[in-house]
Formats: sequence, structure tokens, C-alpha cells
Amino acid sequence: MGTETINIGLIGAGRIGRVHAANLAHRVPGARLAAISDVNLEGARKLAHDFDAPAAVSDARAILEDPAIDAAVICSSTDTHARFIVEAAEAGKHIFCEKPIALDLKTIDTALAAVDQAGVKLQIGFNRRFDANFKAAREMVAAGEIGQPHLVRITSRDPEPPPIPYIKVSGGIFLDMTIHDFDMARYLLQSEVSEVYAAGGVMVDPAIGQAGDIDTAVITLHYENGAIGSIDNSRQAVYGYDQRVEVFGSKGGIIVGNNRPHNAVLSNAGGVQGARPLYFFLERYNDSYIAEMRAFIQSILDDTPPPVTGIDGRLPVVMGLAAWKSYRENRPVRLDEIGD
Amino acid sequence: MGTETINIGLIGAGRIGRVHAANLAHRVPGARLAAISDVNLEGARKLAHDFDAPAAVSDARAILEDPAIDAAVICSSTDTHARFIVEAAEAGKHIFCEKPIALDLKTIDTALAAVDQAGVKLQIGFNRRFDANFKAAREMVAAGEIGQPHLVRITSRDPEPPPIPYIKVSGGIFLDMTIHDFDMARYLLQSEVSEVYAAGGVMVDPAIGQAGDIDTAVITLHYENGAIGSIDNSRQAVYGYDQRVEVFGSKGGIIVGNNRPHNAVLSNAGGVQGARPLYFFLERYNDSYIAEMRAFIQSILDDTPPPVTGIDGRLPVVMGLAAWKSYRENRPVRLDEIGD
Amino acid sequence: MGTETINIGLIGAGRIGRVHAANLAHRVPGARLAAISDVNLEGARKLAHDFDAPAAVSDARAILEDPAIDAAVICSSTDTHARFIVEAAEAGKHIFCEKPIALDLKTIDTALAAVDQAGVKLQIGFNRRFDANFKAAREMVAAGEIGQPHLVRITSRDPEPPPIPYIKVSGGIFLDMTIHDFDMARYLLQSEVSEVYAAGGVMVDPAIGQAGDIDTAVITLHYENGAIGSIDNSRQAVYGYDQRVEVFGSKGGIIVGNNRPHNAVLSNAGGVQGARPLYFFLERYNDSYIAEMRAFIQSILDDTPPPVTGIDGRLPVVMGLAAWKSYRENRPVRLDEIGD
Amino acid sequence: MGTETINIGLIGAGRIGRVHAANLAHRVPGARLAAISDVNLEGARKLAHDFDAPAAVSDARAILEDPAIDAAVICSSTDTHARFIVEAAEAGKHIFCEKPIALDLKTIDTALAAVDQAGVKLQIGFNRRFDANFKAAREMVAAGEIGQPHLVRITSRDPEPPPIPYIKVSGGIFLDMTIHDFDMARYLLQSEVSEVYAAGGVMVDPAIGQAGDIDTAVITLHYENGAIGSIDNSRQAVYGYDQRVEVFGSKGGIIVGNNRPHNAVLSNAGGVQGARPLYFFLERYNDSYIAEMRAFIQSILDDTPPPVTGIDGRLPVVMGLAAWKSYRENRPVRLDEIGD
Repeated sequence: MGTETINIGLIGAGRIGRVHAANLAHRVPGARLAAISDVNLEGARKLAHDFDAPAAVSDARAILEDPAIDAAVICSSTDTHARFIVEAAEAGKHIFCEKPIALDLKTIDTALAAVDQAGVKLQIGFNRRFDANFKAAREMVAAGEIGQPHLVRITSRDPEPPPIPYIKVSGGIFLDMTIHDFDMARYLLQSEVSEVYAAGGVMVDPAIGQAGDIDTAVITLHYENGAIGSIDNSRQAVYGYDQRVEVFGSKGGIIVGNNRPHNAVLSNAGGVQGARPLYFFLERYNDSYIAEMRAFIQSILDDTPPPVTGIDGRLPVVMGLAAWKSYRENRPVRLDEIGD
Repeated sequence: MGTETINIGLIGAGRIGRVHAANLAHRVPGARLAAISDVNLEGARKLAHDFDAPAAVSDARAILEDPAIDAAVICSSTDTHARFIVEAAEAGKHIFCEKPIALDLKTIDTALAAVDQAGVKLQIGFNRRFDANFKAAREMVAAGEIGQPHLVRITSRDPEPPPIPYIKVSGGIFLDMTIHDFDMARYLLQSEVSEVYAAGGVMVDPAIGQAGDIDTAVITLHYENGAIGSIDNSRQAVYGYDQRVEVFGSKGGIIVGNNRPHNAVLSNAGGVQGARPLYFFLERYNDSYIAEMRAFIQSILDDTPPPVTGIDGRLPVVMGLAAWKSYRENRPVRLDEIGD
Repeated sequence: MGTETINIGLIGAGRIGRVHAANLAHRVPGARLAAISDVNLEGARKLAHDFDAPAAVSDARAILEDPAIDAAVICSSTDTHARFIVEAAEAGKHIFCEKPIALDLKTIDTALAAVDQAGVKLQIGFNRRFDANFKAAREMVAAGEIGQPHLVRITSRDPEPPPIPYIKVSGGIFLDMTIHDFDMARYLLQSEVSEVYAAGGVMVDPAIGQAGDIDTAVITLHYENGAIGSIDNSRQAVYGYDQRVEVFGSKGGIIVGNNRPHNAVLSNAGGVQGARPLYFFLERYNDSYIAEMRAFIQSILDDTPPPVTGIDGRLPVVMGLAAWKSYRENRPVRLDEIGD
Repeated sequence: MGTETINIGLIGAGRIGRVHAANLAHRVPGARLAAISDVNLEGARKLAHDFDAPAAVSDARAILEDPAIDAAVICSSTDTHARFIVEAAEAGKHIFCEKPIALDLKTIDTALAAVDQAGVKLQIGFNRRFDANFKAAREMVAAGEIGQPHLVRITSRDPEPPPIPYIKVSGGIFLDMTIHDFDMARYLLQSEVSEVYAAGGVMVDPAIGQAGDIDTAVITLHYENGAIGSIDNSRQAVYGYDQRVEVFGSKGGIIVGNNRPHNAVLSNAGGVQGARPLYFFLERYNDSYIAEMRAFIQSILDDTPPPVTGIDGRLPVVMGLAAWKSYRENRPVRLDEIGD
């Protein structure tokens, strides 16, 4: 039965590392949380203690060199993703890596080449694909329920902006936040985007502008199959995490709304009032983190391609770079203008 | 009490003319449907009979020259709007005119100059402003309920395309259909749009493309105050008339959904099913046609400016022309690029 | 064409009389508002003026004796309904009468006998049957969409109680308010109720209790076909008029919700807030008053039975009397216990 | 730290036993699944293996006599609940027991006396109290958001009836199914019910009637504080598990609706269609099973009273017995008519 348990080394004991550790410990059949690394050893130890992982180290290399480890789950800061992918691939480990792989294509391509070379599996953490709402929408589209898709609308607004220091190294809104929506745009339609036009501005907080970023945007997508998409983003929806999607086609349309902590509705002299959407991604996408990790483990156990590949990790970065170019030059930009 | 009744001459006995005639006959206090003209005299007579109008003529001039007539309601084909406006203004009649005033700015400006010269009132038929849903949204925005507006989203999809011959003379989707959404975009925010970017295509029916038009579009709007808007259009939503609006700002967001013929929801083994949206504009905007006419009559009785002015009729045409230029050149176009 | 216009004499120029006058004047093809009577002649004159009725009188007899009048619409106080029905029937007029016919069965039966004797049409004003929501529900039930009906739930709550003097002569909650729900219970299922059990109390206002009435109730209905129904009533829902219905059966269920003045929904830091239901019956059932009057005129023009008959007017009174007996004796009461 | 882990012996390895085992294994901090018993030893072993419980036995006594066990979770068949409660209490174990404690009051009282005598904690498995929707409703009521409660409406319909052999030993619909709704009725209002009136019938399956039970019911509740409640039940809602609740009072009302597997809504030429409610209690109340067990463990750790006491387990049985008496005698029955 040993061959049926995948020993996982988790790299990076921060917020998202903790999410994956908790899930790997108890919610993912076939997985065993074997080791945790973090440059902050204390953080690694705390996480290992909380979820009964036998080992905690400060150097990820100790995990990657351990022959008992089958797969690495990379949750460290973005600037280390590609390096760990390369090292894990060279060590023959399967890899789950949080998005984005890197903020530039050259680094991404080096990482993807190492994965190809090693023949290991690589899954990118676009968790929203595993959300029940979006999955239902995508399956309806794939089943032809709306005929030929014509329009895609994605609303994606965070409840509050990240800290300014984070924004400075994040790659900016299109590579940090819209990147999930770019993935969603591809996932829903199974057609590639060939051109983008990005409009945006600094409306939430001038400090975001001073950090070289914007906080509000509308991005038009031209799909290869002729469909048109539109994404709107804000770094601050005061009512909570706003995550909606719509696909419209020749035979109908699909609308996906927000999830709420409860559905009790209060009617009184002031109006009819319901709960706000779930606050942020940890609450909203909790189940999708479990589902993506189960899919990763299953793809290893079954030796099938992971459901979100390296190319799926690369293309949204191309779209994000194109969006930045479009925003800066105020013109539509073709994806093939984005070289490496 | 005679001074309190506004005698109306209605020009054009087609579909929208019938709507206004029915409302003027019975639903608009202070108005009296006094005469109807149509180049098709039989049509004018039929309408006059159905709603007890005392006179039916084939030449609108007979109406405009009649000193007993206080105001003209122009419901004839678009290419005659401006001419009738000029003639009505010169005859000293107040004017209600269906949108658009004309498809080119020179003609519009000539008409508006005649109105100014005559000092009569001119109200343009942007009826959606009078819809209870959109009015509630606009009032919430104006009351500061969502703080500073950041984003506007308008979904506007017809249930079926018009006949190809109509499309050929309509000015195309941006001047025929989106024009209402351009007005809505201005109405909701009370800020002007300075630049548009239009993406689109022929997805519903190739014959629409052969007629020189497109049937599906997404238009990005740059507002002067920094807000961004996005309109999506389709000539064919098989589930019915899809008319939704959203405004998002620093303190919250407002969503307006569709109206339905009834709210009975059936749950069975197949799912949970509700009624489709009301079929098309005659069903959906029935009440707004009454409200706009009441407002027109009231502005005459009170001698106050009409709620939708000539400028309100001109600017959406500028936006439509800019959208066409943007679509054809695939680049954002500033409204001040559109000369006359 | 004269034979195709039904000349209407309206008796009673109060609140509901005004509703019917307005509709008969303009919204009911084939009807002509010919005369209005009210013991308060001034009221009759005002109403006649407002809706262009040629005659206003203080004595209804003047209407009923006028050979030019085809039908009487009785909107006077409840204690006069039966008398006017008898007089109108004897005069050979068709009759539309507001509910209830009377508060006791003997009076009702006398009135119905006069109608039978005269062979005129009698329609009772259970307007909710003509509401689009309830009509859709009833049609789904009739079409077998939910299979064999098992359960009916009716929620019917007023926004505020009527004045105490009105309550004293109203017959009490079961004959004044629940009577509409009793009719709805019959309408939705097309099966008769054979037994009722009423629980209730004074929760809104002690003065209602001092007037001999209650203000809150839950009534269980046993249908002849085995189905069970439950009605809940309150004289005061602070959030507005609450009018919901549910039918559940072997193949599914139907839920009908409230109508609102607009559907704009505001999300902010406090929650997600929509409009309250339409305030009261004049707003909520506006369209149904038009539809019931159109159906009445149509049944005269077509010489078909009216859609709400004298028996339909009698049975809810039986149910109301049974409910009072049940409430007072705290036991289920069979309808056949209610004699005349 | 040993004192902070509660060692659990789980009695009964059936369907609900598996739910609790899974939760105790991984989702309840402070709990340790130490042993499982089932008369079917193989079932106990399988469950112990699946969730890493160190011991599996066929005789619950082995668990109850083990000094290392701190608490018993009783998931065996209803007829054994009271016996295990007594034995566990005598062994000084804290107790979590599935509902109902027993189908007769004498047995229940014996069990509760043993618990009192031993001074151990007893929590009854009314898991719906821990559901986020109902909890939000109860908290709003408790916070005075709707003022003084006047009406309670509970809709509780299963997607399919249980097997006939189960029905025969279940105590019938009022003790097996409505018992949860009786608890909910108490939970929402924090006022006791003093009298019930039950109407019902066999509408779903004649075999249920032949087994001495009914499958459809409407129960009226008279609360001590004057409020009135109404519960409707069906053993078969073909569209899925229908679990709704409503509380109405002097200052407003609260409505709780169903949960669905996803919120994607498809609009096409046929209508607007959403997902059916979650299928049944395992899907719908999954999170509430975790929450109730966490609360149980917490009450042990904190030495506070459990949130659902023995009295909370007894009163719904009294209500169920009263409902049966009411149904059989077709009259309202006071709870104090139900002796032991």
C-alpha cells in the first residue's frame, strides 16, 4: 500500500502554505504531509507541529534531496517558484506550484524546460478551476448548453488591497490579481485569447499608484474563436470578495454569483437585507484548495496529466504582460507581441 | 382649465407611435391626443380611431401649422426626425422626439439650433431613464450610497435582431442599439465619457455582417472623472431581453437585474426553474414610456427644462460614431476626435 | 358596434370604487363608465368628473333603473352588497360585486337566488386570481407540473391594520382578510376544503382584541382530495405587504414570492440590501384589478360564465365562519357544521 | 497536554457513525478517535481502519470500561441509545448521543436520571442548531432584530422516504423526522411549545400507511409566549432536501432558504434554471455535524454545559407523542397531556 501514498514536501510555511498543509494532512486521500521547509525555521516547525508533519527544515534542498519525498508543493514567495521548480524537477519530484511561476517568460520557460526534461508532473495552483460554481459553468459550456460562446464577463474584486510592500514585488494588478481571471477566461471557453485591451486607474488608494501599480481595471479580451471577453477588477469592494462570472452564447447564458456565509434574509422597515459575500479567498475558495490538491495527487497516482499544466501557468503571465503593455500604451496588444 | 391641457400632434403611426398614442390617450394627465399624421394615411386613421384622436392626416405639416396644437411627438423614421424638429420648432411647438435625432452631427446641430432659436422645449426619447430599476440605481448613486463611482457595467441584449433592411438604414449597432446604453452610462454617473474602445463581431447572423453591421460588441468607456465603464451587446439573447446594469464605487455597488412576467418558480426533478425575462422593449419598458411622456407634459406645464435634453440626444450619437471609428481602426478613440 | 360596449354603473365611490372607475374609464376595452352613485353625492361627482363619467347620483336606484346601463359594479360597504345584488338582478343588470357578498350565509343565499332567478351574470371581486404570479402557479398546477398536490402554504400579511371602527364591522380577520386566502386556497388546487383548524391571537395591537378580533393567525386546511393547506396571517408586517404562496406535490413544488417596486440591490459594508415588497394591495394588485374587470366585460360580451362565480363568493365565507368557530372552540371544524 | 485531548469511544459504525468518526479523526481539535464498537465487528474494524482509530470491538462495554476513554459518542440504533447512556454515565464518561434518546418518556427519564446522578455531560445530536443558516436566524431573533416573534414557519421535506422496515421501528414521522423540526421550533424562539395540532396523511406511498405511519403532515404549534408555529413535512420532495425556516415578528421577518451544490444559473429558450437543493442531510448538514462535535468537545474542555441538553432531547419526544395523539384524535393536544 506504500506505493499508494504520496509523500509530500511542502516548501513555504506562509499563509497559503498553511492552507495546503491542513488539507494535505487530513483532506487529501493518498497524500502524506512528510516534511515542511521554510527559511524561517520556526514557522516550518510550527506548521509541522500543527499538522503532524514528521520533519521541519529551513533549507528546501533537504526536502528535495530526500528520496522518500515523492512530490513538492511550492508555496514560497513568487521570486523563488521557478528555482524550486527546477530543483524539484532535477530531483525527480512531482511538483505543485502556486501561481505565478514567475513574472517573466524567460524564467518560466527555463522552469518548464526542466520539468519537461525530467518528465515529472507539474500542476499550477489555479484553484478557482476547482470551485463548484465555476466548474458547473464550464461543464455547461463544454456540454453545449449555451451553444457557441459569444461573450464572457468576469467580475473579480478583492475586499481590500494588499500591503504596499507586497504590491511593489507582485508584478502589479494584472500579474498578481487579474492572472486568476485570465486563467478563468481560458478555462471557461477552451479557446485562447489573442489580444487584450486594458483600461484602468488608481481609484482606491493613491499609495498604490505611487508604488507603480493601478487598483481598478477593465480588460477586453479577443478570443481566437471570435468571442469577446471583459474582466473588471478592483482592489477594494467594501462589501466583500466579489467573484462572478458570466458566459453568453448562441443558445443561452450562464451566470455564476457569489457565495455567502449564510442565506438568512432579514426584512424589516429598512429593507430586505442578506449577508455579504464571503470575505476573501481563504473563505471563498476553501473547498477548491482541497479539490485541486486531490486532483494533483490523483494525477500522480493514475499517472495522468495534471489538470492545470505548465502552459496553463505560462499563458496568463503572457496575458498579464500584454495587459500592462496595453494599459501603458493605451492600445490593444496582441499576445504575440509579448516576446521573452 | 384649458391652459392646463397640452394638445399633442403625433407624427408617425408605427409601432412606437402606437405606444405613445395609447399612453397619451389615457395615461398622461394633462395631455390630449389631438391629431395623428402618417405618410400612410390609413395608418394614421386607424390609430386615431383606436385612441379617439379627432384628426388624422397624411402630412405632418397640417399638424405643425395647426395653432391648436401645443406640442409634437415625433415617432417617424429616423431620417425624418431632424426635419420635423426644425419645422416644429419654427412653428413654436414643444417637441418630444424619439432617438436618435439623426445619424450625423451636422444634421443634429441644425435641429438643435432651430430649437434653441425658437425657445421651445425638446425632450429626447431615452425612456430607460424613467424605468423604476434604473431610476432607483441612479438615485442611489446620486445620493452617495456607493461613494465615488469606479466602474459601470451595462449588459444590453435584444431577444432577436431586427430585419436586415432595417439594419441597413439604422446606423448600425452602435447608433441603433448601444445608443441607449451610452445614454444610460451618462445617466447613471452624471459624468461625461471622454474615450471609447469598441470590440465586436458578427456572431449571430452572417447576413448582419453582409449588411455592414456587427451583432455582438463590448465597449469600454473612459469617463472624465476617471471611472471606467463596460457595455456588452448582443442582437440575440434567446432567453429574452437582457437589460442589466451595475455601478460600483468606493463605498459599495448596485446591481439591477431583469424583470420577469411572473415570479413563480418551479422546482422538480430536473432543477429549479423560473420565468425568462420579459420578451422585448415593449413589455419591459412599458411603464417607462408612460413616465417619460408624463415628464414631458409636466415640463411644459411647469415650464421647466425637460429631463432629457437635446444635448442628451447628441452625445450618445457622438459616442456611437466614436465606437464605430474605434471598432474599424481597433484603437481607443477620444470623443473629441469626432467632428461634425 | 353599440352592442359591443357595456355601459357600467358603478355603485360606491370610495377607495376601491376609484380603482375600478379608473380602470373602466381607460383600461378595459368594451366598457364605458356611464354613471356613478354614492350616498355621498359629492364623492360620486368628484369621481365622475375625474374619469369622465356622464352621470353622478346619490341613489343607486337611479343607476339600476336606467335602461341604458348594462351592468353594475358594486363597490359600496359590505353591508349593502347583498341588497344591491338583489336590486341589480331584479333590474336585469349583470353584476360585479366586491367581496364579501355578506357576512352571513342567509343573506348571501338570498342574493345568489335573486341572481339565479334573473339569469344575470355575477362576478365576485377575488382579484388575486388575476395576478400574474398566482395565475402562473395555478396554471402549472393545472398542467400537472407538480403532479398530485399534497401541500399548500399561503403567507398573507398586511403592512398595517385597518382602523378599529372598520375592524368592528369587518367580520373579523377570517372574513375580512383571510377570505382572500381561502379563495386562493381553492383557486390553486381546484379541490374543496372540508375542514379547518384555526389558531391565532392578538399580538399586534391590544385594541384589536378589545374590538373582538385577533390580528395573527395560522389556519390548517383539510382538502377533500386529502391535501393539506396552511395559511398564516398578520395584520402588520412592518416590511410591507407579504403575499406568498407555495404548492407542493408528488412531482415538484411551486413558490411565488413578493413583488417589489424595483430590483436594484445595494451591497455595501453593512450587507446586501434590496427593496421591500410593494406596500399594500393597491400597489401590489393594481394589474389584477384591471384583469378581473376585463374578464367580467369579456364574459358579458361572450355570454360565458364569469371566472369567479357566486358560489366562489359564498364558500370563503363558509370557511371564514368555520375558522371563527374553530378558533373559539379550539378544535377542527368541518365546513358542513356551518349552517345558514 | 494530555489533559487537553479527549479520547472518544464511538458506539455504532453505521452511516451516522461514519460521519462522526471522520469528523472526530480530523476536523475536531482536541478530540482523538480512540476506539469504535459495533455488534458487527467487521464494520467497526473497517471504520477504525479508515480513520486510524487504534481499537475496534464488538461489545460497547469494552469501550465504556476502558479508563482511557473520556467520552462516548452513541450512534447505534435508537432502541439502544438509552441503555448506552446509562452505562456510559455509570462509567463516568461524557456522552454525545444521536436523537432520539428513546421513543418513550419513561426510558428517556431513566437515562437522564443516570446522567444527572453521574454528573457527566450529555449532548443530544440536534445538529441543525449548528447550521450556519439557522444559527444566523436564531441569533437575529435573539438580538431582537425582528422584535417580538409572532409566527414561525418550518418546511422540512426529505428527498425520499426511508425503507419500510426502518419506518416500522422509527416511531413514525413525528418522532423520526419532525423531531428535528420540533427542536428547531424551540431553538429559534427560546420559548416552549404548550400545545400542538397535527394534520397529515399518506400521499407519497401507500406502503407507508400500511406500516402504520403517514408521510405528509402539517403541525400547528402554540407557544407559551403566544406565538404560533407551523411545520410542514413530506417524506418525498422530488427536487431534493427542502429545509427552510421563517420567523416573523413585530419588527420584521427572517427567511432561511435551501443550500445548493453550486449557484450557476442557466438561461435559455426554455427558462431560467438553477441547481436543485443539496440532496439530503449528509450533504446539507455536513458542516453542522463538525460544529456540533466541536461544541461537545469544547464543553468538556471548558467544563461548561453542552449546547443541546438532555431536556432538549426529551422535549421534542413529548412534542412528537403529542403530535401523534393529536393526529389520531384530530384535536389539539396539550403537551401536559403526555404523561410518562
